[in-house]
Amino acid sequence: MDFTAIGTVRSGHAGASGTPVQPCFAQGCRGVLELRPELAEGLADLEGFERIWVLFAFDRSAFRGLTVVPYRDTRSHGIFATRAPARPNGIGLSCVRLLGIRGNLLDLDEVDLLDGTPVLDIKPYIPDYDSYPGVLAGWVEAEAVRQGPRVADGRFEA
Amino acid sequence: MDFTAIGTVRSGHAGASGTPVQPCFAQGCRGVLELRPELAEGLADLEGFERIWVLFAFDRSAFRGLTVVPYRDTRSHGIFATRAPARPNGIGLSCVRLLGIRGNLLDLDEVDLLDGTPVLDIKPYIPDYDSYPGVLAGWVEAEAVRQGPRVADGRFEA
Repeated sequence: MDFTAIGTVRSGHAGASGTPVQPCFAQGCRGVLELRPELAEGLADLEGFERIWVLFAFDRSAFRGLTVVPYRDTRSHGIFATRAPARPNGIGLSCVRLLGIRGNLLDLDEVDLLDGTPVLDIKPYIPDYDSYPGVLAGWVEAEAVRQGPRVADGRFEA
Repeated sequence: MDFTAIGTVRSGHAGASGTPVQPCFAQGCRGVLELRPELAEGLADLEGFERIWVLFAFDRSAFRGLTVVPYRDTRSHGIFATRAPARPNGIGLSCVRLLGIRGNLLDLDEVDLLDGTPVLDIKPYIPDYDSYPGVLAGWVEAEAVRQGPRVADGRFEA
């Protein structure tokens, strides 16, 4: 299947090292999603949503194997049990805060994406569809993981 | 960017018409995600998660325009302000319930995916990263929408 970027993220994160691993650890990290101008009409009515899903390409990581030691743990897990970037299909998913829209530009906060990241899709965050507080979260619930790193390092760089 | 399916969903939904529009409307809709057998090692430790994200290709819809009338409303919205399948990049996102894993087979509930849907990625649902109860959800919050259809029709069929 062939997909083309619909836009690009501009952020203060030049490389993986030091970049928050998820939006919840990226408060105050502002960024701009530059949608291709000819697609701006597709943003109509998005401004009423507080958060959006950004689906993007992990363009600076490569798949290397089916088990990985993720940023937050010291133990190995299956790649599909992690959010690590080195996946068979390098597609990322981040729930960022939407501050406002100016034409084809989306002003964002809680941005955990690298500067220049190609964007594949934007979807509204809808709590009725997406919010399941308190569901079991496997290895991520271990206290050692909860206390683990909140920023990435270079381990998954291509 | 080129992606290859990592597996296929088997469900009781033969076509869009009558299929729940989201997992929250699909309780009791069982299905099986058949991962490519050579990728099964990547499922290690996923079984401790109650829900998973399935990223998939909307293989029976085609992008037609930047505004759509989504299933749940009678008014038009920008495609990026909806979860409609007819997107510039036809990538879907569903948070389904994981019942268990048998080798390369994932037993699922709350399945809103059509039988035969190509799967692009599987990620664990992690409430700390993904659950934002109560955030504003724009046009979806209108009472007429909340009372709107919970199953799809054929409007977005390719």
